[in-house]
Amino acid sequence: TVLLQDKGRSIGSPPSPLWISLPQPRNLPPMLGFNSSDGSLSVDLPMALRVFSVDYHHVQAPFEIVLWIMLASLAKLGFHWSGRVPAVVPESCLLIMVGLLVGGVIYGVRHSAPPTLSADAFFLFLLPPIVLDAGYFLPGRLFFENLGTILWYAVLGTLWNVLGIGLSLYGVCLLAQSSLGDVSLLHCLLFGSLIAAVDPVAVLSVFQEMHVNEQLHILVFGESLLNDAVTVVLYKLFESFLRLPSVSGVDVLLGGCRVVVVGLGGLFVGLFFGLVAALTSRFTSRAQVIAPLFVFLYSYLSYLTSEMLHLSGIMAIVTCAVTMKQYVEANVSERSKTSIQYFLKMWSSVSETLIFIFLGVSTIQDVHMWSWPFVCSTLLLCLVWRATGVLLLTAVVNKLRRNAVTFRDQFIIAYGGLRGAICFSLVFLIDDFPKKRLFITTTIVVILFTVFVQGMTIKPLVELLDVKRKKRALPTVSEEIHSRLIDHLLAGIEDVVGYWGQHYWKDKFEQFNRKYLRRFLIREDHQARSSILRVYQELERREQRGDEEAPRV
Amino acid sequence: TVLLQDKGRSIGSPPSPLWISLPQPRNLPPMLGFNSSDGSLSVDLPMALRVFSVDYHHVQAPFEIVLWIMLASLAKLGFHWSGRVPAVVPESCLLIMVGLLVGGVIYGVRHSAPPTLSADAFFLFLLPPIVLDAGYFLPGRLFFENLGTILWYAVLGTLWNVLGIGLSLYGVCLLAQSSLGDVSLLHCLLFGSLIAAVDPVAVLSVFQEMHVNEQLHILVFGESLLNDAVTVVLYKLFESFLRLPSVSGVDVLLGGCRVVVVGLGGLFVGLFFGLVAALTSRFTSRAQVIAPLFVFLYSYLSYLTSEMLHLSGIMAIVTCAVTMKQYVEANVSERSKTSIQYFLKMWSSVSETLIFIFLGVSTIQDVHMWSWPFVCSTLLLCLVWRATGVLLLTAVVNKLRRNAVTFRDQFIIAYGGLRGAICFSLVFLIDDFPKKRLFITTTIVVILFTVFVQGMTIKPLVELLDVKRKKRALPTVSEEIHSRLIDHLLAGIEDVVGYWGQHYWKDKFEQFNRKYLRRFLIREDHQARSSILRVYQELERREQRGDEEAPRV
Repeated sequence: TVLLQDKGRSIGSPPSPLWISLPQPRNLPPMLGFNSSDGSLSVDLPMALRVFSVDYHHVQAPFEIVLWIMLASLAKLGFHWSGRVPAVVPESCLLIMVGLLVGGVIYGVRHSAPPTLSADAFFLFLLPPIVLDAGYFLPGRLFFENLGTILWYAVLGTLWNVLGIGLSLYGVCLLAQSSLGDVSLLHCLLFGSLIAAVDPVAVLSVFQEMHVNEQLHILVFGESLLNDAVTVVLYKLFESFLRLPSVSGVDVLLGGCRVVVVGLGGLFVGLFFGLVAALTSRFTSRAQVIAPLFVFLYSYLSYLTSEMLHLSGIMAIVTCAVTMKQYVEANVSERSKTSIQYFLKMWSSVSETLIFIFLGVSTIQDVHMWSWPFVCSTLLLCLVWRATGVLLLTAVVNKLRRNAVTFRDQFIIAYGGLRGAICFSLVFLIDDFPKKRLFITTTIVVILFTVFVQGMTIKPLVELLDVKRKKRALPTVSEEIHSRLIDHLLAGIEDVVGYWGQHYWKDKFEQFNRKYLRRFLIREDHQARSSILRVYQELERREQRGDEEAPRV
Repeated sequence: TVLLQDKGRSIGSPPSPLWISLPQPRNLPPMLGFNSSDGSLSVDLPMALRVFSVDYHHVQAPFEIVLWIMLASLAKLGFHWSGRVPAVVPESCLLIMVGLLVGGVIYGVRHSAPPTLSADAFFLFLLPPIVLDAGYFLPGRLFFENLGTILWYAVLGTLWNVLGIGLSLYGVCLLAQSSLGDVSLLHCLLFGSLIAAVDPVAVLSVFQEMHVNEQLHILVFGESLLNDAVTVVLYKLFESFLRLPSVSGVDVLLGGCRVVVVGLGGLFVGLFFGLVAALTSRFTSRAQVIAPLFVFLYSYLSYLTSEMLHLSGIMAIVTCAVTMKQYVEANVSERSKTSIQYFLKMWSSVSETLIFIFLGVSTIQDVHMWSWPFVCSTLLLCLVWRATGVLLLTAVVNKLRRNAVTFRDQFIIAYGGLRGAICFSLVFLIDDFPKKRLFITTTIVVILFTVFVQGMTIKPLVELLDVKRKKRALPTVSEEIHSRLIDHLLAGIEDVVGYWGQHYWKDKFEQFNRKYLRRFLIREDHQARSSILRVYQELERREQRGDEEAPRV
């Protein structure tokens, strides 16, 4: 038999365990030729003219990408078809198990480690669709009402976790001087910054199956989205500190500036592209087919631009999506809207699936390094610091909130801090040093622990604690009208008493939006509709669609 | 100012005329650093900690791809917005002009030729979406009724053109011995095979704006789709002849076999993946979000598999789309269906736009070589051989057809044989020889001539000749019922008189489809619908959608 085996390829590309075996005739002159230079297999006839030939090398890159996506989609299909398993085990766990299996098979066949998920592939291609989807379907009202609390958790909570985990891990390293003596304080802080990153992908995939109450959901999910700016900045900061000969107080101050620059910079980039996208969609009425394309192009461009300028890409793409949504949806046709929503869901769903499968595949490796004290203390410290952080921060924030975050909700917030592919990608980017392999192993253990143990037990815990669930019904017209009335009333009251709170600013923005933004960004023939008519149409449409509404798998 | 210029990149990737200029402070120590190793520009503060930095290299590939797609989409948007220009000049011409402009600007700025459209990028990424779209929306009934004539044109017509153009060009080369003496017969035949390839992309883009009668449209378009198998095979055949020391009669015979293998092979690959895709879609009811994905994945896989086995990818993807369509559409939800249709249109539209823009960009080159006799005679020969071929072949085929192809239709078929990116990509793949640059120049001239001159004059000619137009109305329920009744009747008559014609086989296939295929490939709860009920539902839906129906821009 003739084997057509894959040739080692660069990072980010999956391996190709593909064999083509053909029986070779014995009595005839050799007709099968294997051209090792270009990896082509041909049936050479005596006169050297090929009637049938195989050229795998030519199509390798797209072929393997398609096969991986196919594997991911089929795995997803299989779980949903079986029906019973996903009710107990979260999909993310099942997908990681599929990944482990595939990785094991590849290892067994090739006798070398399967490829790991490259940080570039993750940050440039897999993460954006998920964050874009999250941003586009972000419940705006709920998010902005809780923005203060979310930022409180995302900024201070993350700082607390990073410094807490980093410093106490350094303590552990000092205690276990014999085996971990060569890990410096900066290395510990660097590791702390990546291991503290709560992952939006993991959080989304577990929480959307649980249907907890909207407020709890937005707190956990919002935090996981916005903590990106802080963790990535801290990570880069400690990384550059490691490269500096000495660290001064000014450096630390500059680091603080960077957090603000990175966060606000991403925000402005997203705002800019969101407005441009809204404006572009105004002119798509005669070229409806490409209208959905602009949503994807501009959001991706905002993400790439931010990454290029070392700003927070996640902040940019979320802001871009939130900004453009209302104007784009008013400008494009109903069919375009459906397509946009469907494809956002589809892409994010596939990306998510691929990430978890690759997490599984990447676990099978040669480079593991184990240390009981380091791994166990990291696991424990992650839990302890997160729990204390949430308790302390909520105690403060509850004094300022109208509806306090209950103790049950606090428990779920602390317990729902799942880690995922962001930590994983960051740990591979660390400059080489003797204990890098230990960091990688520990990160994988923490991710698997949070996704498997916490992910699988959180659902029973939610039931046990009797956490308030989401009410499934969509708002009726009368509810919508009343909530609007109350908004106006509160804005009026705030104006009268001279307190400029959120209702006042919201009302001001609505006026600005109606007077300028909507006039400038929405097609003339679509502007006339009064806002209550729009609400009515939207509700009518939801009614029509019935159970098909926004299918999230 | 600090310039951040692009670094030369490999084929297929656009250049990056991107400058970032920042004013450099004079009285301060240098704070701006340009790292030439990774192309990053940074604002280095005295203590070497970066607060703001640019890393273009990191995001270059996706960033530039997005920018090109953005350019294409905006160009399209612009033409449709202006309204008046596209009514006179076909969009393909306008896009080529935009490409020429962009190419000129790049040339002026970089003082070197802009990148050409790489054959790999074209065949692997840009062509498949267009052919998939064409296959998915292929009017099945019309296509199969005219299949004989289409194959007649596609196989014999193409052979006629290739041999005719190749042989007479060799004659021209012999006459102009002094300048073209080094062009061999095989080189002429090779060039004939690529220049004879009628391009589905160019044909579609011109014909869909004209609304000629359905039969004429399917004849031109069907030929342009199916001639791919013949031209690519002939091209590869002459290419391998060129590499052989001598060519025997057996080689020619084997070449004939290859045409059959390549065509039928592509057909079977497409059929296989189409049926698997249909079967997969049966199980997507619980994971509706990823249902559309399978349509794209399986079709692309059929294309890649065919390309890998050196079969006709175009045949495969068209067959795959035709095969899966009715089962997939019966299985998935209405929203999935809309998304599938929308995205097929969107992708093909963007690919088409990119192809024409790149054709323009690639025209601006350093490698041109000019020869009046060769270029002019090629242009003339293309027209003459196509015209005589269509006249001769139609004379024969009209004896067998019920409704003859009129003389006016013949003229449009001959005149509508536009060349496009397929020729262009093939000519770059020729092994280097002294006159390769002449071949490239001539191909570009022929493409520009057919797209500009023929493309712009064909619409007035259609009006002048008063060619029968398409009736715009969709079939009513009563028309559908009557045409079905007549089909059954004809099948019965054919059965009685013992003549097994197309109606007999169609009826047999319908029975087989109803008894086995539909039962196996369609969800149980969707099978019960009687066929007439399905027609009614489909018509209802069209009614509802009104003017939004299948927007093709």
